[in-house]
Amino acid sequence: MTNNKIHIFDTTLRDGEQVPGCKLNTKEKIELALQLELLGVDVIEAGFPISSPGDFASVQEIAKIVKNATVCGLTRAVQKDIEVAAEALKPAVRPRIHTGIGASDIHIKSKFNTTREDILERAAKATKLAKNFVDDVEFFAEDAGRADISFLAKLVETVIAAGATVVNIPDTTGYCLPHQYGEKIAYLYNNVPNIDKAIISCHCHNDLGLATANSIAGAIAGARQIECTINGIGERAGNTSLEEVVMIIKQHSSLGLYTDIKTEMLNPLSQLVSDTMRVPVQPNKAIVGSNAFAHSSGIHQDGFLKESLTYEIITPEEVGASGSKIVLTARSGRSALAHRFQKIGYDFNRNDIDVLYQQFLHVADTKKEVEDSDLQVLATNYVPAEVNA
Amino acid sequence: MTNNKIHIFDTTLRDGEQVPGCKLNTKEKIELALQLELLGVDVIEAGFPISSPGDFASVQEIAKIVKNATVCGLTRAVQKDIEVAAEALKPAVRPRIHTGIGASDIHIKSKFNTTREDILERAAKATKLAKNFVDDVEFFAEDAGRADISFLAKLVETVIAAGATVVNIPDTTGYCLPHQYGEKIAYLYNNVPNIDKAIISCHCHNDLGLATANSIAGAIAGARQIECTINGIGERAGNTSLEEVVMIIKQHSSLGLYTDIKTEMLNPLSQLVSDTMRVPVQPNKAIVGSNAFAHSSGIHQDGFLKESLTYEIITPEEVGASGSKIVLTARSGRSALAHRFQKIGYDFNRNDIDVLYQQFLHVADTKKEVEDSDLQVLATNYVPAEVNA
Repeated sequence: MTNNKIHIFDTTLRDGEQVPGCKLNTKEKIELALQLELLGVDVIEAGFPISSPGDFASVQEIAKIVKNATVCGLTRAVQKDIEVAAEALKPAVRPRIHTGIGASDIHIKSKFNTTREDILERAAKATKLAKNFVDDVEFFAEDAGRADISFLAKLVETVIAAGATVVNIPDTTGYCLPHQYGEKIAYLYNNVPNIDKAIISCHCHNDLGLATANSIAGAIAGARQIECTINGIGERAGNTSLEEVVMIIKQHSSLGLYTDIKTEMLNPLSQLVSDTMRVPVQPNKAIVGSNAFAHSSGIHQDGFLKESLTYEIITPEEVGASGSKIVLTARSGRSALAHRFQKIGYDFNRNDIDVLYQQFLHVADTKKEVEDSDLQVLATNYVPAEVNA
Repeated sequence: MTNNKIHIFDTTLRDGEQVPGCKLNTKEKIELALQLELLGVDVIEAGFPISSPGDFASVQEIAKIVKNATVCGLTRAVQKDIEVAAEALKPAVRPRIHTGIGASDIHIKSKFNTTREDILERAAKATKLAKNFVDDVEFFAEDAGRADISFLAKLVETVIAAGATVVNIPDTTGYCLPHQYGEKIAYLYNNVPNIDKAIISCHCHNDLGLATANSIAGAIAGARQIECTINGIGERAGNTSLEEVVMIIKQHSSLGLYTDIKTEMLNPLSQLVSDTMRVPVQPNKAIVGSNAFAHSSGIHQDGFLKESLTYEIITPEEVGASGSKIVLTARSGRSALAHRFQKIGYDFNRNDIDVLYQQFLHVADTKKEVEDSDLQVLATNYVPAEVNA
């Protein structure tokens, strides 16, 4: 693999927006699109133009205003969908049409009521039609996670021959295990003769909590695009979290991969998406949760204060979060207590801290978090013990 | 591997409770412990007895009341910790002491300021001391994720020789990739001569969103216990989600593994933990999020209505969630609309739906979710078109 850049394809505005209750208006979408462009994503999937007039307008307005990122619109492998998407994308500097069809037998039979051969024909036809409008055509092989692997290889070969520049291998139901998803991508690299003419893309869902791991397994096996959303939002259990895959790639330099994401924008943008879409972020969400950098247990706090690398592998500044918090609870130890006293202006010695720690535990057992004001009370009332020298 | 049961070690009440602001009182802990026992967990880590009088009392009360599950208390590899834990666990039918020490050089040097040899000695000593009180001793090799692998193997061998029945290989900082964690466990199986005398346990953190994938990679490599919490709560980005590993093991029967968890209790217990600890669960949390089974996009809704297996791999009933929801938004298609009209008593034909669908999209573009009351208005005002036969 000579090119080791992982292209980040953000679908917050399309697959992410499919969260019930999260529909955005065009103005909100434009604002997020501009932020995503600043973040450094390579592709913004702006919507599904045929699905509603509102979606059409959003894709069109984003196509007008975004200059550096590719702007992408989703379609089914249907003539009308593709024509409408092409129309919405007309103003874009870098337009991409994202078309595709079901690849698993369960989709082919129960959804399309047709044959594998017919699917190959429809796929090639849709790709060629899209190519009439734009150079950059991405094809999705829906439910690839459960598709027959040799048929999937044939489908990928067919759409690349028809002109697809990117082929998306979605694990639509979030069913795959990471080693299985990685093996699927590796199989395609070994069995699709024209695969070097396209970028393979991972689109994973989080139904079993494995979307991030599956996307990384795909990249290790050769995929060079990851489709993801801010905060992992999306239908059902959501999509791959952009912030997680980006930080894994940054953190694990031994993978030899990189992205162009400005990581210090991750936390502010997570907040903006959460606020705009009104979807709360769990406090313990990786990278962007409010507790992601909070230490509360005594063992951890002691180690962290001695050397932050002991427990922290990402600095909060790296992802635009405010500094690491030391939260005092009944699990906190003496060193965290002494540290906090120092921060509020009291420099107690070891003996003092031993005595104060017992008083602190008494407070901590009755409160969920001990505040600086509680410590002020302890410090003010404290009478140092006589030293028995 | 003759025994393919994965033991579920729940640490919601210990590592989970380290979430800032989540401290529970003894009564709340007992209630959760009894529910965890009903859920079918094998081990309940009830607390860290030496850390505070409140924690001691909670472990002791849980030890009195829980009859089937093993009740476990955490300690450092320190005499006083172990003695206090033994005291708290005295009433337990199945007591376990969980002791351990840092295994990575960064922990050995910056936290303990000592040598690898000294760590081996302290580990053996702590294990033997714990064995004086209980038969079942688990040893944790803290920060094993970053430890030198041959030293880790030596440490595991030493504590098994000293009597440890379970050895916990924590990825304390959430740093490992799944294939790396799996290779670590496989290395231990290949290089620790007495490894068949103990169960190897996975304890993963979610800082990079990989805790679930790492735990499963560990189990595939031979580990037979997974340490996890309900909703994945815990310090920083939290622990492995119990519900995710359990459903992956259930769903992927090809792994040949099983747990004793009653999966239909997963959603009610998730709610109880969220309410008791006041930690919200993201709507798109895998398995237990409120949207985990909600379908809103048109393509998905159509497929789902034709055959639920198309998009759904777990039924909501299996995990105790209320039935799958079809949420109507601007992304919904004609079949979802027709289905919802049927549910509220209107049986429109295809032509009617075509007309109503345009009116519906107009409503959907201005509202986030279309309610049944909106559909009632559309249905009541609808005048069927003349049929041009």
